[in-house]
Amino acid sequence: MAGSELTNIKSPRVKAARRLTKRAFRDRDRSFLAEGPQAVREALALDDVVTELFTTAEAESRHAEIVAAARDAGIPVHRASGEVMAELAQTVTPQGLLAVCRFVHVPLERSLTDETRLVAVLAHVRDPGNAGTVLRAADAAGADAVVFTDASVDPYNGKCVRASAGSLFHLPVVTGAPVTQAVRALKDAGLRVLAADGAGERTLDDVDLSGPTAWIFGNEAWGLPKEILELADDVVRVPIYGRAESLNLATAAAVCLYASARSQRAAGAQSPAPKLP
Amino acid sequence: MAGSELTNIKSPRVKAARRLTKRAFRDRDRSFLAEGPQAVREALALDDVVTELFTTAEAESRHAEIVAAARDAGIPVHRASGEVMAELAQTVTPQGLLAVCRFVHVPLERSLTDETRLVAVLAHVRDPGNAGTVLRAADAAGADAVVFTDASVDPYNGKCVRASAGSLFHLPVVTGAPVTQAVRALKDAGLRVLAADGAGERTLDDVDLSGPTAWIFGNEAWGLPKEILELADDVVRVPIYGRAESLNLATAAAVCLYASARSQRAAGAQSPAPKLP
Repeated sequence: MAGSELTNIKSPRVKAARRLTKRAFRDRDRSFLAEGPQAVREALALDDVVTELFTTAEAESRHAEIVAAARDAGIPVHRASGEVMAELAQTVTPQGLLAVCRFVHVPLERSLTDETRLVAVLAHVRDPGNAGTVLRAADAAGADAVVFTDASVDPYNGKCVRASAGSLFHLPVVTGAPVTQAVRALKDAGLRVLAADGAGERTLDDVDLSGPTAWIFGNEAWGLPKEILELADDVVRVPIYGRAESLNLATAAAVCLYASARSQRAAGAQSPAPKLP
Repeated sequence: MAGSELTNIKSPRVKAARRLTKRAFRDRDRSFLAEGPQAVREALALDDVVTELFTTAEAESRHAEIVAAARDAGIPVHRASGEVMAELAQTVTPQGLLAVCRFVHVPLERSLTDETRLVAVLAHVRDPGNAGTVLRAADAAGADAVVFTDASVDPYNGKCVRASAGSLFHLPVVTGAPVTQAVRALKDAGLRVLAADGAGERTLDDVDLSGPTAWIFGNEAWGLPKEILELADDVVRVPIYGRAESLNLATAAAVCLYASARSQRAAGAQSPAPKLP
């Protein structure tokens, strides 16, 4: 790499990236930070998402292929000192790679197609780590989209991006949708809308999950408000077979999404494919 | 309550409790701290577990029934100032109730009976929050026991106790067992031992989970070492239907444990009960 290393944490370039740790600046610049080799690699796999890459000398030698991919794509690569990286990164032990990325979310209507079979809706999820973990679980379970409503945390919060482990870049993510609008769009797209809540009379074991389904997940502490429970086609709880009062949000979401995924696949295996390519 | 309020963070009583935030002192005193109304309530439901209760005035009026239950059981109740509670509690916003508890774990051999059908083994889980979340999920899924091997975090770590949300007091927990010894005991008890690992050739969808099963969960970052994979009867991965590289440890554990619980229940519903009471 030609050129100098960024060593001044007060340089304009560093300050411009650093302020993306704040939501107001993210929204203004329509950009966010993705840290670490996994997230950067996934971001680079998309066209026109990464606009700048910061790397320490050590990370550049350790992850040469990632840095080379950025250069090949014409993305400005800035060598940064350890001090500058520590200023930009939000982790205790920064991994030395940090990308400035354009927003990747899509409008609600574009996230849903005739093929949409499984969607996760985060209705009142406030903890960014939980939100990112649900996003990762939804991706693992093969969800077609994840919707963050306007009452949920910002998906571009650094903790959410990290907890998603790259999944933010894998599937259509919607943000800021009013929940009523999201539920209407999901129903219009032919999905059955299930609210996951401990108040549900029916459990995962009692419902047929083989059809197209959207799951709504609520707040870590108090679940879902009555208005949302009433909007849903059904309220379903994860059965508690032991003595725990409940599951934590991300584990409950993973159990629901995998139950859907397995039922849909089992049903798909039994019936002829609905469409030929 | 008669008597004075503890206001000095350097008083011997406060210091004796405070040092239980360190493992060496926990092991010496065979005692640990349980914070918050939920954990304290669950601890009080067991005989001879809580040895002291600290409460702020506010928590005592808010949770009068918990404090009364402690007094009725002859447990010393200490009124503490907000400052003392902040010193003892490990949370940012302490909930004003904190119990000193005797160790509740049981020996490995006592955790297993002829009726044991589902066990979770934490083999190399290092993050206490993850460990507590797995313990809570195991309880919710109706597990009969949870085994922490000697390479896993201390179940009495404050973060683990909090993340377990009371489940530490709900089912037999074993700690410090060497993994080879644990696997042998589980096999001797008639359980099929499955290692949950992304390296598994078979997925949850390919294995019959209807029989008595023990799941071994590994490290957050690197999974399970080869020796443990070889000890297990089978290595099984959670299928990834989407593009995520993996699931996080606690969500993967929840999906595995619930898959077992549901298979066992479905099998139980189809066949006559094996034993009459």
